Amino acid sequence: MATECLDKQKTIDLRKKHIGPSCKVFFSHDPIKIIRAKGQYMYDEKGERYLDCINNVAHVGHSHPDVVRAASQQMELLNTNSRFLHDNLVVYAQRLQATLPDKLSVCYFVNSGSEANDLALRLAWQYTGHKDVITLNNAYHGHVSSLIDISPYKFHQLSDAEHHKQFVHVAPSPDIYRGKYRADHPDPATAYSDEVRDIISRAHERGGKIAAFIAESLQSCGGQVIPPAGYFQKVAAHVRQAGGVVIADEVQVGFGRVGSHFWGFQLQGADFVPDIVTMGKPIGNGHPMSCVVTSREVAQAFMSSGMEYFNTFGGNPVSCAIGLAVLDVLQNEDLQGNALRVGGHLTRLLGKLKEKHPLVGDVRGHGFFVGVELVRDRVKLTPATAEAQEVIYKLKEEHILLSADGPHRNVLKFKPPMCFSREDAELVVERIHLILSDIEKALNMHMPDQVHFDRGCKRKVSFSDNLPECHSVRHRGAGNEPIRVYN
Amino acid sequence: MATECLDKQKTIDLRKKHIGPSCKVFFSHDPIKIIRAKGQYMYDEKGERYLDCINNVAHVGHSHPDVVRAASQQMELLNTNSRFLHDNLVVYAQRLQATLPDKLSVCYFVNSGSEANDLALRLAWQYTGHKDVITLNNAYHGHVSSLIDISPYKFHQLSDAEHHKQFVHVAPSPDIYRGKYRADHPDPATAYSDEVRDIISRAHERGGKIAAFIAESLQSCGGQVIPPAGYFQKVAAHVRQAGGVVIADEVQVGFGRVGSHFWGFQLQGADFVPDIVTMGKPIGNGHPMSCVVTSREVAQAFMSSGMEYFNTFGGNPVSCAIGLAVLDVLQNEDLQGNALRVGGHLTRLLGKLKEKHPLVGDVRGHGFFVGVELVRDRVKLTPATAEAQEVIYKLKEEHILLSADGPHRNVLKFKPPMCFSREDAELVVERIHLILSDIEKALNMHMPDQVHFDRGCKRKVSFSDNLPECHSVRHRGAGNEPIRVYN
Repeated sequence: MATECLDKQKTIDLRKKHIGPSCKVFFSHDPIKIIRAKGQYMYDEKGERYLDCINNVAHVGHSHPDVVRAASQQMELLNTNSRFLHDNLVVYAQRLQATLPDKLSVCYFVNSGSEANDLALRLAWQYTGHKDVITLNNAYHGHVSSLIDISPYKFHQLSDAEHHKQFVHVAPSPDIYRGKYRADHPDPATAYSDEVRDIISRAHERGGKIAAFIAESLQSCGGQVIPPAGYFQKVAAHVRQAGGVVIADEVQVGFGRVGSHFWGFQLQGADFVPDIVTMGKPIGNGHPMSCVVTSREVAQAFMSSGMEYFNTFGGNPVSCAIGLAVLDVLQNEDLQGNALRVGGHLTRLLGKLKEKHPLVGDVRGHGFFVGVELVRDRVKLTPATAEAQEVIYKLKEEHILLSADGPHRNVLKFKPPMCFSREDAELVVERIHLILSDIEKALNMHMPDQVHFDRGCKRKVSFSDNLPECHSVRHRGAGNEPIRVYN
Repeated sequence: MATECLDKQKTIDLRKKHIGPSCKVFFSHDPIKIIRAKGQYMYDEKGERYLDCINNVAHVGHSHPDVVRAASQQMELLNTNSRFLHDNLVVYAQRLQATLPDKLSVCYFVNSGSEANDLALRLAWQYTGHKDVITLNNAYHGHVSSLIDISPYKFHQLSDAEHHKQFVHVAPSPDIYRGKYRADHPDPATAYSDEVRDIISRAHERGGKIAAFIAESLQSCGGQVIPPAGYFQKVAAHVRQAGGVVIADEVQVGFGRVGSHFWGFQLQGADFVPDIVTMGKPIGNGHPMSCVVTSREVAQAFMSSGMEYFNTFGGNPVSCAIGLAVLDVLQNEDLQGNALRVGGHLTRLLGKLKEKHPLVGDVRGHGFFVGVELVRDRVKLTPATAEAQEVIYKLKEEHILLSADGPHRNVLKFKPPMCFSREDAELVVERIHLILSDIEKALNMHMPDQVHFDRGCKRKVSFSDNLPECHSVRHRGAGNEPIRVYN
């Protein structure tokens, strides 16, 4: 352990020297040095407390003592690979299975969401004998090369636009606020799933064969998108008809976060069961671990390839002890119930902001998975990207950590530790209210259908019409583009 | 933590039910249930002690108290991602850098050797703008899909032989015992590196462009292969001439294991510096962590793609605290020196076995990276695969854990925790001596150039001539093939 306590500037200098420049810090112009954390609070080197609204990894709360104790005790005893028998591995697999439909009974333990999603693809390829993968627009599934290929959120960042692989098909994100079919559509679930059906037809015409459809049960980096009920059932029917499987990526949204259910995919109804589920981030409260769960049939097909699967660290006794402790804490502290209650409260409070603030275009969420989409114009849905960044920066000044994401980075993204309280929710909403009021005042924005006077010119305006002049958001990069919080 | 202590059969049953059948245990017919470990010893559920000769992950010894303490203390304080500043990250990067040539100064922290090697490929692809990868025959670089593609050790296991990707070129393993150019060749380093040169020419003829040559500094799963001195320098010259980079995979062999040097690639001489080094297994003594280190130039090129690199768990304060503790223990206990001294002693003792046992074809090693290749015939080099498995099984009965690997699984592979002692080395060599004596007696094998009598027929024989009749090795699979220890 580093016993040194470096001057913050020294930490920054060493980071510039020795850490890959592609690895960005939050708030690059004035990054935060965090030295301890507890529950939903983080503390910087000066002892200043920050409210954490974004860390879905510290799932049961930062440094939860039960989790730390389980890890320490197991580390003292044994940490070795899964070529030896160990109870933690099998008991943990059994406990995880009990949270899932019976069909999903076989586990592979790995180290990260990326390893999990890559393995899910390998399972799908082997089981189906097909290659093509359907992914959603704006999706992010991980940082290894196979997942960059199926993550438009990532490959759209590339200066080289040729990255798109032929076997990857991008379906529209089932976003009923900003997407192709919106809330006013009579049946967006069918409309969006028909897009997948049509992609399959076109792939078939070109000789492609569908191995898998992969999607987060609720799209996270993609903008906190909540698919319309029934969407996955219909997609699954088309995909299975084509011989493919459905992979539900629960890396960001699983483990009770959605409040009413343990897994995000369960929001779609009991009649939807994926063929493969991947889980990660919250699974070990920060410990590097993750899991793929699938059916016996898929697992048998994977074995029949003749290739063993061995993961050096995956399913080690320490990881499994930690995983068990996380499940225990979730249960003992009724954190899923807390997500349902406090998350519901948070969403209701945010919903009220929509009545007061023209910038708030949409509020959507389940439990502690909530998005607030900011727009400059509720008709055109012009993304209020710079304003969202302004909210994030202002909140940081008030020691509240929130982030903005989505393809336009205009969606405030709530995914706090599961011990987040009513008071925390009320505090952050109140602060957002004040910050939005300031921004709107500076921008001279008013609620829709109000006539306002601007520079002596009286006319009914769309919100965005006057933004170039009035726009006062301060945080900008060198090219005058709004800078991103992740810099 | 699982407080249960399940009956061993129950553990086996649950494992069959809930763990992917591609995930194999050691000694499948009678697997070992390990419940604690300390130093170089592991203990089963009955308290029986096993000497661990194979675990290169428990690098500074199982459950080392300094490492456990560093982990526990940091977990109590903080475990979060690298978007916040933290001293552990930068201090650890600085400490790692100090073990490497100056040119290798920029770190990316990830969670497994697989994540590290995948990222190394991404760095190479981005830096060079090329796609083709040269890998060695029998190489293993990891379990994610991009690495299966460049791991003949894995893709040769596939029943579907079509797996070989066009952009992947397989060069001969620089194995001077069994390979294309052997110890009697006047210049095997040049001969093997010329093979790489020729591969590059052929790739160019087909329009391919070389992004990277990747190799373990000493091939591990590939059969404990020690490349001839100067090989990597010559390969690097050809590869760089073609615009590619050289990736040294130190996942299995790094961190002082080779005794005389901290990194395996340093065995080739100070005039060889890879462009990218990947490290893993021993780095955290069992904690899931790994690292990629490269030059400023490669790192800048990666950033210029426009794509961020974020790894949820990579470089978290707990992982870095553990990494620092491992480096401290290595230094405080002079474990690299121990590898040099005891590893040398082990290799000398094993060398003496070669004088006594016809089955011992070759003994090779550096420090605690040692291979003993068993052959039925020292001229034909017929792999003594079943005999190697017999040794492993017999050792297990004597509570010594060793494994056999290589393309023919006939290479006894030593890679013990770095605290392995002289007495441990003497014990295991003595036991191998006795087991080999028994096997050779049963097979009626003698040292070369001895005339022996077999079933009344007097003739000078090659060792393998009479094996079909006499072969008594017991452990066989259903198809009468010698079974593998990893089953």
